[in-house]
Amino acid sequence: MHLFYQPHENLFELDEEEAKHSSKVLRLGSGDIIYVTNGKGLLQKCILNVQARKVGYEVVESSLIPRRNFEVVIAVAPTRKAERNEWMVEKLTEIGVERIDFLVSEHTNPETLNRVVNQVRLNRIAASAMKQSQQYYMPVITVNNKFDTFIKDASEDSRLIAYVPEQNKVEHVFSRVRKNSSTLLLIGPEGDFSNREVELALEQGFSTVSLGPTRLRTETAAIAGCHAINLAQGLS
Amino acid sequence: MHLFYQPHENLFELDEEEAKHSSKVLRLGSGDIIYVTNGKGLLQKCILNVQARKVGYEVVESSLIPRRNFEVVIAVAPTRKAERNEWMVEKLTEIGVERIDFLVSEHTNPETLNRVVNQVRLNRIAASAMKQSQQYYMPVITVNNKFDTFIKDASEDSRLIAYVPEQNKVEHVFSRVRKNSSTLLLIGPEGDFSNREVELALEQGFSTVSLGPTRLRTETAAIAGCHAINLAQGLS
Repeated sequence: MHLFYQPHENLFELDEEEAKHSSKVLRLGSGDIIYVTNGKGLLQKCILNVQARKVGYEVVESSLIPRRNFEVVIAVAPTRKAERNEWMVEKLTEIGVERIDFLVSEHTNPETLNRVVNQVRLNRIAASAMKQSQQYYMPVITVNNKFDTFIKDASEDSRLIAYVPEQNKVEHVFSRVRKNSSTLLLIGPEGDFSNREVELALEQGFSTVSLGPTRLRTETAAIAGCHAINLAQGLS
Repeated sequence: MHLFYQPHENLFELDEEEAKHSSKVLRLGSGDIIYVTNGKGLLQKCILNVQARKVGYEVVESSLIPRRNFEVVIAVAPTRKAERNEWMVEKLTEIGVERIDFLVSEHTNPETLNRVVNQVRLNRIAASAMKQSQQYYMPVITVNNKFDTFIKDASEDSRLIAYVPEQNKVEHVFSRVRKNSSTLLLIGPEGDFSNREVELALEQGFSTVSLGPTRLRTETAAIAGCHAINLAQGLS
C-alpha cells in the first residue's frame, strides 16, 4: 500500500517531494493505485495521473478513519540536540501520539531553542512517520510553550509529570492511565524540571509518575512514557 | 555521581577517552571522587590520582550490585542504516536489556552488514548508555548470528517472535512475559522475516506476538518490545 500525505483535500496533486518519491523511488506512473491521507483521518484510494512533473490523482474511493477512543499528549522540554528531538518526534508518531508540545522550562536554554526545535522540519518528520506506520492522523506539534502558562491551561483528563522525588516511591505511568480518556505526560529536560516547576504542576492537579527503575534521557523518557500509555490503553 | 567504565578490574586507570572526559569536560582532578564499574555489576567508589595524562584511581569502597531477577534478550535483524542500529543499541541499553543479538536473516543484505553493524562502535555506545542511565551491567552484543542456527540454539524460558500473520490476531508481547524468567524476542528486518523463517521458529517452540496496532520500523519495534517486557516484569 503506497500511502501519501496531502493536507489540502481539494488539490488532487502530490507535493514536489512526494511526487518525486512516487516516480523516482517507487516508479509509479499513470494508472497506478495510490492512497492519500490528509492527516485528519481521510483515506482516499486514488488513480495516478502523471503529466510531466505534475503528479495528479483522481479519487476513486474515500473513507473517514475514526480517531482512537483515547488521546496521548506528550509535553517535553527539548533536548539540546536537534537530532534527538527529531528522533523523538519520529518514534512518538510511530508509537501513537495525538499531540507533542515542546516546553520552555527553567532549564531550557532559550538561545539554542530555535535551532534545536524546527517546527517545519518536525512536521515533515511526523508526516513521514505517519505514512510509514500507516496511520491517518498527523500529531499536532506545538513549540515554545511557556511551562507556567502551559500547565495552567492543560485540560486533559489525566495530567501527569514524570518526576521521582528523592526518597519517595511514585507509581509507574502505566498504572495511572484511565481508559478511554486523554492523558498528558510532562517530560523534563536534561537537568530535570526545577523544584518550583514541579510544585506548580502539583498545585495545578498534576500527579508525579515514574517511568521505571533506570535513568532515561529526555527523548527515551518521552518514548517510554508514550509507549506505556498506549500499552495501558490498548490492553483489554 | 560521576560513573566511569573500566572493564579491566586490576588496571586502576581510566581509558584514554574517559580520562579526557574526566579532566576536560568534568574538570576533575586528584582527590576527587569518581565511581567505576566493570559492566559486570562491580561498583567501586574511587579517589582520582592524576599524573600528567594518566588518570589513575584508588578504590576506597567496592560492592557487587546484583543482577535483575529476569533477563531480556532482543534478537534483531539490523536495519540498513548504521545510525538506526546505533540508536537502537543506545535506547535498549537505557531501557534495560541483557543481550542484543544481531541476526542475519533471509532479507538481510550481507554486503552492507559489516558497515551497518560495527561491534566495536556498538559496544562503545552501550557503555556510554549504561553509564548515562546509571546501570552496572553492560549488555552483551553479538553479531552475525545466522537465523536458523540461532533459533535452534535459543534456550530462554519464553521465546517470542514479533510477527502478525495476516487475518490472525496474536497476543501482545506484554501479555506473554513470564515473571522472573528470561525472555527472547525476535524482531524482523525491513521486509520482515520470510514465511520459512517464521515457520522454523514456530517449529522450534517460538510463539508469535504483536507489538501493538501500528506498523513500527525495526528499531522502534525492538525498543517497544524491550520496553513492554521490562514493564511486564517490573509491575507488581
